[in-house]
Amino acid sequence: MEIGNGIVKDGDDVLILLEDGTTYLLKVRRGKTFGTHLGNLRYDEMIGKNFGDFLRIEKGKAYILKPGMDDYIRKMKRATQIVYPKDIGYILIMLDVKNGDRIIDAGLGSGAMCGALARYVGENGRIYAYERREKFVEIARENLRRWGVLERVEIKLKDVEEGFDEKDVDAIFLDLPEPWCCLDKAWNSLKFSGRIGIICPTTNQVQKVLLEMENLGFVRTKVWEIMHREYKPNPERLRPVDRMVAHTAYLIFGIKVKTGKECES
Amino acid sequence: MEIGNGIVKDGDDVLILLEDGTTYLLKVRRGKTFGTHLGNLRYDEMIGKNFGDFLRIEKGKAYILKPGMDDYIRKMKRATQIVYPKDIGYILIMLDVKNGDRIIDAGLGSGAMCGALARYVGENGRIYAYERREKFVEIARENLRRWGVLERVEIKLKDVEEGFDEKDVDAIFLDLPEPWCCLDKAWNSLKFSGRIGIICPTTNQVQKVLLEMENLGFVRTKVWEIMHREYKPNPERLRPVDRMVAHTAYLIFGIKVKTGKECES
Amino acid sequence: MEIGNGIVKDGDDVLILLEDGTTYLLKVRRGKTFGTHLGNLRYDEMIGKNFGDFLRIEKGKAYILKPGMDDYIRKMKRATQIVYPKDIGYILIMLDVKNGDRIIDAGLGSGAMCGALARYVGENGRIYAYERREKFVEIARENLRRWGVLERVEIKLKDVEEGFDEKDVDAIFLDLPEPWCCLDKAWNSLKFSGRIGIICPTTNQVQKVLLEMENLGFVRTKVWEIMHREYKPNPERLRPVDRMVAHTAYLIFGIKVKTGKECES
Amino acid sequence: MEIGNGIVKDGDDVLILLEDGTTYLLKVRRGKTFGTHLGNLRYDEMIGKNFGDFLRIEKGKAYILKPGMDDYIRKMKRATQIVYPKDIGYILIMLDVKNGDRIIDAGLGSGAMCGALARYVGENGRIYAYERREKFVEIARENLRRWGVLERVEIKLKDVEEGFDEKDVDAIFLDLPEPWCCLDKAWNSLKFSGRIGIICPTTNQVQKVLLEMENLGFVRTKVWEIMHREYKPNPERLRPVDRMVAHTAYLIFGIKVKTGKECES
Repeated sequence: MEIGNGIVKDGDDVLILLEDGTTYLLKVRRGKTFGTHLGNLRYDEMIGKNFGDFLRIEKGKAYILKPGMDDYIRKMKRATQIVYPKDIGYILIMLDVKNGDRIIDAGLGSGAMCGALARYVGENGRIYAYERREKFVEIARENLRRWGVLERVEIKLKDVEEGFDEKDVDAIFLDLPEPWCCLDKAWNSLKFSGRIGIICPTTNQVQKVLLEMENLGFVRTKVWEIMHREYKPNPERLRPVDRMVAHTAYLIFGIKVKTGKECES
Repeated sequence: MEIGNGIVKDGDDVLILLEDGTTYLLKVRRGKTFGTHLGNLRYDEMIGKNFGDFLRIEKGKAYILKPGMDDYIRKMKRATQIVYPKDIGYILIMLDVKNGDRIIDAGLGSGAMCGALARYVGENGRIYAYERREKFVEIARENLRRWGVLERVEIKLKDVEEGFDEKDVDAIFLDLPEPWCCLDKAWNSLKFSGRIGIICPTTNQVQKVLLEMENLGFVRTKVWEIMHREYKPNPERLRPVDRMVAHTAYLIFGIKVKTGKECES
Repeated sequence: MEIGNGIVKDGDDVLILLEDGTTYLLKVRRGKTFGTHLGNLRYDEMIGKNFGDFLRIEKGKAYILKPGMDDYIRKMKRATQIVYPKDIGYILIMLDVKNGDRIIDAGLGSGAMCGALARYVGENGRIYAYERREKFVEIARENLRRWGVLERVEIKLKDVEEGFDEKDVDAIFLDLPEPWCCLDKAWNSLKFSGRIGIICPTTNQVQKVLLEMENLGFVRTKVWEIMHREYKPNPERLRPVDRMVAHTAYLIFGIKVKTGKECES
Repeated sequence: MEIGNGIVKDGDDVLILLEDGTTYLLKVRRGKTFGTHLGNLRYDEMIGKNFGDFLRIEKGKAYILKPGMDDYIRKMKRATQIVYPKDIGYILIMLDVKNGDRIIDAGLGSGAMCGALARYVGENGRIYAYERREKFVEIARENLRRWGVLERVEIKLKDVEEGFDEKDVDAIFLDLPEPWCCLDKAWNSLKFSGRIGIICPTTNQVQKVLLEMENLGFVRTKVWEIMHREYKPNPERLRPVDRMVAHTAYLIFGIKVKTGKECES
């Protein structure tokens, strides 16, 4: 009987945690070794152990953990600025992502946000992921496969300015350099009462997005920024760490409604 | 054929948005009326409309939106301090919640965090929700039923100091006044490589939790606080709102691993 | 011999602190009484006491404190948005305000920033305060007189678009709705290596200011925002207060240098 | 006649600003050269120029600026954690520092806070600076001399646990590892209605300070933290910088009043 998080097998992803806090996201490869500053990790010694167990290496222990989505995102092969876990969590809530949802994600980039959306729409949900740069499609595909959600994602190698193929989707997430250029297309593809989320690093972009959202008729438009501050986990000297991420991006949300002009068309 | 977010029926929950930004979370009740400062809402006029459509009331439009989890949480019947959407999103990510997970949630309170966990573990997942105060159990049960996730939750009217009945759960979330008192019980119920999340409003509580987590052997202990700042969505005068929530709570996370003393027992 | 902060006299300003934390900034008026929700304050009982002493009123004590500049600013008669103490402190440092400095302050508004500048340039310094609205001039004059710095301030009832009368001032502070319109005039009045500070509530204003500062040749341009978060001073339950000021304004600083085109003129 | 910020002379401090934003705080030394990655700076070429003028070096311009207090603090020779400009400004306001004040500063450290206090108490004010470590006294003395305020400061090579020699001072500032140990001594030296400010990096220290302040009878106790966030000054892409200082220290303030027990002694 499997106890705990299961048994480590050849080919599994593992998150190795050393005693100084260093972590590595590795794929177990029988017969191989991975060198660290605190000693060598022999994959053969991992195989058969439970996740949560440890290896003794030259200097201390090396814990073998099951990687979580946050680890994959932080450690993933990336070719673009990714959406950070702090923002991903809030976007999931604000887009009201749920099992069975059909969601457009553009641009796909390295696939961090897409992976999170795909996880939470479940087996019956579907993500339509747009990306016009072929090399990112390859990176994202590999990431999505690793996370076990590739079959929920329909990747489209296509420029969003040509429009989206889907209609009546539950939500749309835009992570594009000029999102205002395709907001009308997003509006057309979104169902009524459907939610849009847009991520932009600069205030100038936010201003342009807001102007276009007003024009199109989005309601309940909200703009947020999220600051995460970490603390040193020392019970005798509890205080924030010295430095933090000051900014990743602004998050904009809105809802499509009938404007009263639909009847005319 | 259903277009958009579906047709409003008697008994549905609706989120009404007035043109001044006011929102109401209502249950459609045939034959009844709901009065607002901008005019009366007649439920009969809502029935049969699409979500996303609007009623014309005395002063402007009243949009009929599909409530999202965030709306339910903000508007829910509550008897306790709730976990806020800004924190919920990050907790989901940091506990690596996924379809099929078995998770302990204590205390249940009004059920906001439990509802989010239940949504994201999917139909095959299970939440074991502990609460020792009977009146909260009633409130939470009503909230969970409304969100359609009650059947995924096993509610236990029980003091956590008696321990948890489950073993090898994937994750545990603690929202209790003195979480350090039951951390040993949480450790026993968590699988190896399983994740714990604890929420505390004060620095004194964080210090006590950290001390006990050290004693028990949790690794990768992290403490975070999340600040959300809203902006006025005016493209000509983009700036943060005047006042914001300064603090809800600190979030603490850790992972259970083998300590090397397990063999002895 | 005077002990402590001096003896309260008729006509003095006092800051009254009640035991529930309420404060009042009052002028002592012999023979009069001031009513509060915790009891009446008789001014005659204050006269002759030391600052720092207290009156016994119906419900507890009423401490008689010497008002500080921060109290005056928070309690001052105001007709405009004021500059907050949190921003004032940083502006003083970043404009390198020191004894003997000559500084332009525009617009004067209710005089909070002007009062702080006047305090820190000392008796040999001088503030040139521009304000085009007569009623603010009156309010500011009264505030500055109360703080004992009126004689260091030259108030000019004049629109800044007509330019500033001074040359080679050490620093300029602008708190105006459209500061970009007079940046060229500020440049002309500032000495080389002199510092400018500008305060703007919106990102759109910051963008326009930055563009004009680039055009004029300012160097070492910096943009800051300052967030102050208060904690509940409870040693057993130390935590931030629930709500905070999310935003007052952005602060922009720069330094005038020779551009190499001066020789031509 | 001197124009602008005066003429650079041998021995002057200058802040050199290169076109890539690099700055150097240097002392002009006739006949010498200072090498940078953008070219060599010959001090002889600076002498006789106005502050605000520039040298042409191999790659672009090198502006010669008058250093401000903020530059000295950021660039100062330091042997300890310093108080940052963002905190200094607010402390000046909250201690209500003004011309003529007598203030205790303990511990002196490298002298950053002391220098700021000395600047703003003016020629008639006085700072009593306590420091028990001889090497810091030397560093601080050099810094204070450079800023031209040494004659306003009385440096005492002494442990604060022995108490302070002064009575009835206007304000006290404590930057010590265990400030709670000398709060009773601070109370004794402070005048009634006088203000205390204490800076602590950890929440545990804040808790201990608050407890002792309660015991002693301080009123109007406030705890603050100040977050400064810088923006990239690009008008086309206005956004915060990527990383910021997450924490320097908590600031605690209080006021001494009569407790009613004074008469007994």
